[in-house]
Amino acid sequence: MSNTLQNSKAIGVFDSGIGGLTVVRALLEQLPNENIVYFGDTARVPYGSKSAQVVREYTLDDTEFLLSRDVKMIVVACNTVSAVALDVVQKRANLPVTGVIIPGAEAALRASGNKRIGVIGTAGTVNSNAYRNELQRLDGTTNVFSKACPLFVPLVEEGWLDLKATELIAQEYLFPLTTERIDTLILGCTHYPLLKRTIAKVTKGMVTLIDSGEATAGTVAAMLDAQGLRNSSSQSPNIQFFVSDAPEKFTAVGELFLGRKLGVVRKVTVGRH
Amino acid sequence: MSNTLQNSKAIGVFDSGIGGLTVVRALLEQLPNENIVYFGDTARVPYGSKSAQVVREYTLDDTEFLLSRDVKMIVVACNTVSAVALDVVQKRANLPVTGVIIPGAEAALRASGNKRIGVIGTAGTVNSNAYRNELQRLDGTTNVFSKACPLFVPLVEEGWLDLKATELIAQEYLFPLTTERIDTLILGCTHYPLLKRTIAKVTKGMVTLIDSGEATAGTVAAMLDAQGLRNSSSQSPNIQFFVSDAPEKFTAVGELFLGRKLGVVRKVTVGRH
Repeated sequence: MSNTLQNSKAIGVFDSGIGGLTVVRALLEQLPNENIVYFGDTARVPYGSKSAQVVREYTLDDTEFLLSRDVKMIVVACNTVSAVALDVVQKRANLPVTGVIIPGAEAALRASGNKRIGVIGTAGTVNSNAYRNELQRLDGTTNVFSKACPLFVPLVEEGWLDLKATELIAQEYLFPLTTERIDTLILGCTHYPLLKRTIAKVTKGMVTLIDSGEATAGTVAAMLDAQGLRNSSSQSPNIQFFVSDAPEKFTAVGELFLGRKLGVVRKVTVGRH
Repeated sequence: MSNTLQNSKAIGVFDSGIGGLTVVRALLEQLPNENIVYFGDTARVPYGSKSAQVVREYTLDDTEFLLSRDVKMIVVACNTVSAVALDVVQKRANLPVTGVIIPGAEAALRASGNKRIGVIGTAGTVNSNAYRNELQRLDGTTNVFSKACPLFVPLVEEGWLDLKATELIAQEYLFPLTTERIDTLILGCTHYPLLKRTIAKVTKGMVTLIDSGEATAGTVAAMLDAQGLRNSSSQSPNIQFFVSDAPEKFTAVGELFLGRKLGVVRKVTVGRH
């Protein structure tokens, strides 16, 4: 039984910073009627190099903020949070919750023929073994090869998507994976879809690239349908952006991630009393 | 009139993370008798990409921590804090305080013949114009050419000091400065001294590189002398390290910055009540 008032509430999305906008982009494409509230914790970005304990503290703050905006479900767009703190969100929020790890792992297994799957992400995501564990839980015969790529985020934020140096760094990171004959590679960080072209070049087009954000948008649609929570309003949706540091940089770089104009970005304070 | 009890107190040093250890290294070389308390805010690193307002909040937390350790002076090892929040430290701490900007600017002017000086650092440091303002305050005829180099910190933390990609990135960043015929370049970030060799190669040995940390250690010595605060004890000094996130990574990478073993690194909580 659907409820118009409940269904018109926004989907809450949070990330450590700007990268989660690639997940919002996928949501806008696959669920064009939904209202969205996005929070990027730009005052404390990045999470990927920090310990699980600190990431769990920050995650609770982020969740509290989205709850204060009365959302109907929560999408953890951040791979690091999805890897080490998804239970923090689930425990605090009495709402449907999804991260990006399980959708990404499922999509990779559907795409892979030889079940030799690569995973790249931040140090936090890779060290957590979250993708490896999920892939092997879903199919115990899967061989998983992981590599942390800490230079990729600053390269993307610099806008150096196609530079020779970017290609050399991608080779440095990906060579150990290609020698393992992977046929599928999970882009386990929301920034990495912007490097798809360079990664495809370095892997010579032999590897299927999995964008966890796109996979997650599919999972969100399925969860909304299962719970009768889809927004049936034909009004143009309301997309709101909040960040914890000055909005200017977020606004400037954000278009690259979102693929369209952002509109107003508001600063809020989280985690300090 | 010197006071043994007062003088045996430690010099407090803080940074957004690990980079300030290059300043500690310079202090250990130039002031081998001094006790030191170091705090690295690794839970909230980096500061360089964040707004002045957020950096000022974090700086107050860092200062409170050092004051709780009863230090005799405070060295702001972080270029970003020195650029945008030195007054926060000075206002809160009733102690001698130095940042790294003024010592670096002074050393650059001593080294430069043509008074065409380059400055590289994080986005926060460069956008603050702190080095430019200080150089031009000291000598109004100076021409200053600045460039933010956000890839340098992750390259150093990856340990990729001499890679071809590192050289290409250094060329990308430094080309606009070398075409301006600078004869002196301020390494305005504590990580950058580890890239000295690559930077010297790219600038073809034609540019004097100024390590602000080394310059700052000289300033600290002069300030201690001026106030009669030098430690005269011949006991082996006590060097203590504190961080706000898990110590393991700090300990592992820290040796590269400090040039020696670190010993025990303790985790403390700052800025949350």
